Amino acid sequence: MSHGSVCVATYRCYDDKADFNKKALGIAVGLTVGSWTDLPEARKAEMEKHLGKVISVTVHESEGAKPGERYADLKIAYPDVNFSRDIPALLVTAFGKLSMDGRIKLLDLEFSESFASAFPGPKFGLAGVRELLGVHDRPLLMSIFKSVIGHDLEGLREQFYKQALGGVDLIKDDEILFENPLTPLEKRVETCMAAARLAEQETGQKLLYAVNLTGPTSQLVANAKRAVAAGANALLFNVLAYGYDALHMLSSDPEINVPIAAHPSLAGAFYPSPHYGIAAPLLLGKLMRLAGADLVLFPSPYGSVVMPKEENLAVQAALINPALPVRASMPVPSAGIHPGLVPLILRDFGRDVVVNAGGGIHGHPMGTAAGGQAFRQAIAAAEQGLSLPEAAKQTGNEALQTAIDLWGFKE
Amino acid sequence: MSHGSVCVATYRCYDDKADFNKKALGIAVGLTVGSWTDLPEARKAEMEKHLGKVISVTVHESEGAKPGERYADLKIAYPDVNFSRDIPALLVTAFGKLSMDGRIKLLDLEFSESFASAFPGPKFGLAGVRELLGVHDRPLLMSIFKSVIGHDLEGLREQFYKQALGGVDLIKDDEILFENPLTPLEKRVETCMAAARLAEQETGQKLLYAVNLTGPTSQLVANAKRAVAAGANALLFNVLAYGYDALHMLSSDPEINVPIAAHPSLAGAFYPSPHYGIAAPLLLGKLMRLAGADLVLFPSPYGSVVMPKEENLAVQAALINPALPVRASMPVPSAGIHPGLVPLILRDFGRDVVVNAGGGIHGHPMGTAAGGQAFRQAIAAAEQGLSLPEAAKQTGNEALQTAIDLWGFKE
Repeated sequence: MSHGSVCVATYRCYDDKADFNKKALGIAVGLTVGSWTDLPEARKAEMEKHLGKVISVTVHESEGAKPGERYADLKIAYPDVNFSRDIPALLVTAFGKLSMDGRIKLLDLEFSESFASAFPGPKFGLAGVRELLGVHDRPLLMSIFKSVIGHDLEGLREQFYKQALGGVDLIKDDEILFENPLTPLEKRVETCMAAARLAEQETGQKLLYAVNLTGPTSQLVANAKRAVAAGANALLFNVLAYGYDALHMLSSDPEINVPIAAHPSLAGAFYPSPHYGIAAPLLLGKLMRLAGADLVLFPSPYGSVVMPKEENLAVQAALINPALPVRASMPVPSAGIHPGLVPLILRDFGRDVVVNAGGGIHGHPMGTAAGGQAFRQAIAAAEQGLSLPEAAKQTGNEALQTAIDLWGFKE
Repeated sequence: MSHGSVCVATYRCYDDKADFNKKALGIAVGLTVGSWTDLPEARKAEMEKHLGKVISVTVHESEGAKPGERYADLKIAYPDVNFSRDIPALLVTAFGKLSMDGRIKLLDLEFSESFASAFPGPKFGLAGVRELLGVHDRPLLMSIFKSVIGHDLEGLREQFYKQALGGVDLIKDDEILFENPLTPLEKRVETCMAAARLAEQETGQKLLYAVNLTGPTSQLVANAKRAVAAGANALLFNVLAYGYDALHMLSSDPEINVPIAAHPSLAGAFYPSPHYGIAAPLLLGKLMRLAGADLVLFPSPYGSVVMPKEENLAVQAALINPALPVRASMPVPSAGIHPGLVPLILRDFGRDVVVNAGGGIHGHPMGTAAGGQAFRQAIAAAEQGLSLPEAAKQTGNEALQTAIDLWGFKE
């Protein structure tokens, strides 16, 4: 849906009594030209191109609605001419002051072609990550370092190697591992990439290591380049702690030529309330992708803390929707994932997904390497349409059998 | 309250059934060393310094509580050794993943001395802004540009001059005014500062013009320096659109030697929900100040959209609390302010406050300059303990009388 040179915001606005049409008009005028009806006609002609427009107002009210339940979805178009082509400018325009104006949540932003054209988007994206790994015909498998604070390089190396032996495609740093004397950035990269090469001799497969990019905003680009120079072949980034434009800065730098995985850290401060904040498909989907995330982690519907599945799928949809004129980002639903869930994950998300596990790998009774192997076996089985117990039996596959004995499985 | 080399987070956590002590322990361990009870004793000795600690758990439950009402306040200490001394690292540690873990809101962060010492804080602060203006004995008055999108330099100049003539101490850009061909940054600064000098010949008073600092993250420092070189004597910054560390980057740059006013743009995406997000006194108070905001705008309790007054006062308290080892930030409660509210503002916030008005200045029936004058007269009256009608009568003061005729007044 294109609206010419305007970006369109959709809001959900709760109010028991408001005249929502009036409210929408107030927003469209107030957040653009400021006032309209009082302007002289000649001035109106000049200002017309700056004026926000109400696209639609859809009121949801039912006879028996309780107080607090009446709401409307408002769509407002903001002319591109009013803001610079960066995400902070668009967010400040569409939801800066308005975020503080009662019970209102930003559900979506549609970008004009002109606005979107300022963003190169993911450098690799879903297809590029597959290309780097040489894996095209199955979901990818990612493993998360487990409790690495206070560990030294040798401890890290050992844990990395075991994960790599399990046949995972990606290993990500813990997002709470910051620059520290025990495992400083460059040493960490060198140590883990050496372990990756060693494991590759065993497994014959490539592996991306997403090292956590941290530090002051002014040092992010330099730190990323140091990591790349040390051999890092991917980065992990806590996007919301720095703002989307910091991700854009990193992703659009030609020298930072490795995939960036966006971590959803702090996202729960924005998306879960029905009344306030920014909806997950925009927050973790569209904006992460526009800003250039090659992979995006977001809460899975399988963990103890559940994001409603329809919201999950909407995040995924935003990451891959061909309507956005940048590469698709690889969806990485995360949390609560064990090998027995693999068939379900494939049914929910299809093949273009990263199966991402922490406890489901490290907690395997036969060890971390077996944990990865169990996942790979589960993925192979699901791809062949075999049930997991059947596959474990047929192949005499101990790692998978042990995993489903412990965690169960879903068909 | 000092806890040694740890930063302490306070959360409010809603759950009808949870064992909150167990939950707190899970957080303290999970967000630091990852696991504890299974560690060998020798390893525990090594890891002890990295281990998070539960400081307190205060459960609020009543017999007749309805579902959804049971909650606890949890205080958890995070050792400084686990994270770098920047706000993104602390936020990611204390509320990164945890923000997505059910109904939990981050209420407060207490910084260790060591952590806080990495932050120079506001370069000018409350006292420094007063010093720059040479005004020590009364609240300051700030005026907000009204609808300037689509206006040219001449339109801006005219509006600026009228505001300045009214005797305001500060004028701020509209936060939705971005880089644009009609009023580009440097031209805008030159034009407005020239108008300020002209007005000073009339009023004899100094004035700070906070020009809106916008653009890509990578250009913020350069843009700030361009503005300063063009004569800007203050900056306005939409902090939350860029992250606190971007403000820290600006405020700690010795060449950006002008006060920075933090705009609360997007804050409503974080603070209003009781169940999610980040509480306003931390979001708009403590963190803005630590990151170096000299002035901080936040919702007033007087506007149509009300932040509860106790929350307002808690934001103010965080901005000036002497316990934080950086300069105090000047509080700027904003929205819905007209001259008749001045005595109330002074009672609520004391003298160290900026009275900030948009419509209450531009909407004055005698014009913008009279709007500012009415405020100044109201401030003078309140300082002398005169009631506003009394003051208007005594001084034969038409601007103030007209304002209170239109908007009323509170004693």
